[in-house]
Amino acid sequence: MIPFELTILGTSSALPTSSRYPTAHVLNVRERFFLIDCGEGTQIQLRKLGVRFSRINHLFISHLHGDHYYGLIGLLSSYALLERKNDLHIYAHSELPELLEKQLYLLKNDQTYNIIWHPLNFKRPQTILENKTVKVVSFPLKHRIPCCGFLFTEQPEPKNLIREKIKEYNIPIREMQNIKQGADFVTDEGKKIKNEELTHAQKKPRSYAFCSDTAFLPKLKDTIKNVDLLYHEATYDKRMEKRAGEIFHSTANQAAQLAKLGNVGQLVIGHFSARYKDTSQLLNEAKAVFENTVAAEDGMVISIPRETVR
Amino acid sequence: MIPFELTILGTSSALPTSSRYPTAHVLNVRERFFLIDCGEGTQIQLRKLGVRFSRINHLFISHLHGDHYYGLIGLLSSYALLERKNDLHIYAHSELPELLEKQLYLLKNDQTYNIIWHPLNFKRPQTILENKTVKVVSFPLKHRIPCCGFLFTEQPEPKNLIREKIKEYNIPIREMQNIKQGADFVTDEGKKIKNEELTHAQKKPRSYAFCSDTAFLPKLKDTIKNVDLLYHEATYDKRMEKRAGEIFHSTANQAAQLAKLGNVGQLVIGHFSARYKDTSQLLNEAKAVFENTVAAEDGMVISIPRETVR
Repeated sequence: MIPFELTILGTSSALPTSSRYPTAHVLNVRERFFLIDCGEGTQIQLRKLGVRFSRINHLFISHLHGDHYYGLIGLLSSYALLERKNDLHIYAHSELPELLEKQLYLLKNDQTYNIIWHPLNFKRPQTILENKTVKVVSFPLKHRIPCCGFLFTEQPEPKNLIREKIKEYNIPIREMQNIKQGADFVTDEGKKIKNEELTHAQKKPRSYAFCSDTAFLPKLKDTIKNVDLLYHEATYDKRMEKRAGEIFHSTANQAAQLAKLGNVGQLVIGHFSARYKDTSQLLNEAKAVFENTVAAEDGMVISIPRETVR
Repeated sequence: MIPFELTILGTSSALPTSSRYPTAHVLNVRERFFLIDCGEGTQIQLRKLGVRFSRINHLFISHLHGDHYYGLIGLLSSYALLERKNDLHIYAHSELPELLEKQLYLLKNDQTYNIIWHPLNFKRPQTILENKTVKVVSFPLKHRIPCCGFLFTEQPEPKNLIREKIKEYNIPIREMQNIKQGADFVTDEGKKIKNEELTHAQKKPRSYAFCSDTAFLPKLKDTIKNVDLLYHEATYDKRMEKRAGEIFHSTANQAAQLAKLGNVGQLVIGHFSARYKDTSQLLNEAKAVFENTVAAEDGMVISIPRETVR
């Protein structure tokens, strides 16, 4: 199976607990790995969960609260010790390299790889990465400090031609590339053959949206519309809605409302306040609004299967 | 039982593994807690192991390699979230507050407690803390960058008078304090009564020496002489002795040699290179030189019982 798979490394809010590390997710898109946020202990969780973190080349930091980036310096340091060679792209607030400046300077001597910093735009959505595997769009959230969410969409693979049809219509090689990209074919006799008759049914590109710390923001529904998997923070329960709003966090109910508005496939909630010893209350609250919800646990893996579309 | 108890939070060297966090120890001396080094994930280990870390008021950082201090900023941040009130004393290289300056600045608004920084002396041994519970002496080690070890010695408790003897010799109240401090007593008839006849046998003050990253340094034997418990790094095995020396680390054999030279009660080795999947080789090597050795594991607790001396 060609993976589109999320591994959740940490599910606490600002205070880690005995069973919850701070926020960090890894998304595996066809064996390319993308790290999203990097709370303290991320490198340890990557090891415990057997993620081959040498294969992470892109790292996304939603905002500069410590529970989302304190694990970065340790990871960068370990990459140096492991003599990493590949460039590492870090998408974050422009102030992050400055914040870590002196610690990064101390790593300089042992640095075996380049860090390429990409400042995020906190004003409007922006495509920050597009390659053969994935397209990543950052979008502003509403938190106490500038904060971005990230939308990962798998790139469509080229269509595969149906061998028998090539023969039947005597399709020349020069036309094949166009058909793979979606074009119809016109025979010598002027007959138009529709693309879908010539190609195998395609797989639907899979998608994942990460909504880190944010107040409830209904207008996000357009950004996250129809994603297969939505992660949304759910720091509090419904009774704490006022408090949540004051410090720009969300309740489980609000996370589920957004999932419903956005017509997403599945919702995973996380970033739980340390006050919740177990999360059943939060999960039930979300499920009442949006049934297909799971409460994140450290180490949880969620796979999105490939679906054929026509 | 009145504790003198070491809890080992992390036992890896620079690269953490799936079962080993980086260096951090907590020493409980009569319910006062002292944190020694603070690698990434220390606050998580404190929680997992149930250490009441709100009771830590003194924190010692041996040197500024990341695996010994990357967990500090997260701990300081959590203390603020937990609205800590007590002063926190941090004994470390004078450059540490500067290294973390910008991250500390971001915590300022939520800071509910004072941090009092105590710069270490890397030239000579120095008493850095002395209170009713404990005396702590820092002493220079030999590493690639300035590095200190720490010697913790329990303070002797005042002697307890034997009630019957007070009566027998009709000891006036004004003399009692002197006798508790060890003085003899002279009766009105001029007869000298030895202190040990008047007081209960005392408990021997317990001691712990922490030798973080260092090359083999035989002259340390005088500093750590007769300690009840010696922690000494043992990054490598004997065959790696040359390499160890080059990068100012020690072998298990060398750690044990020091334990023997210093006539210590027990040796615990740690800071194992990630190359060792299990540590039996290192342990056997040390035990061949100094039998009473244990290999540290994350979460290990070592208690030193009180012994009566005369």
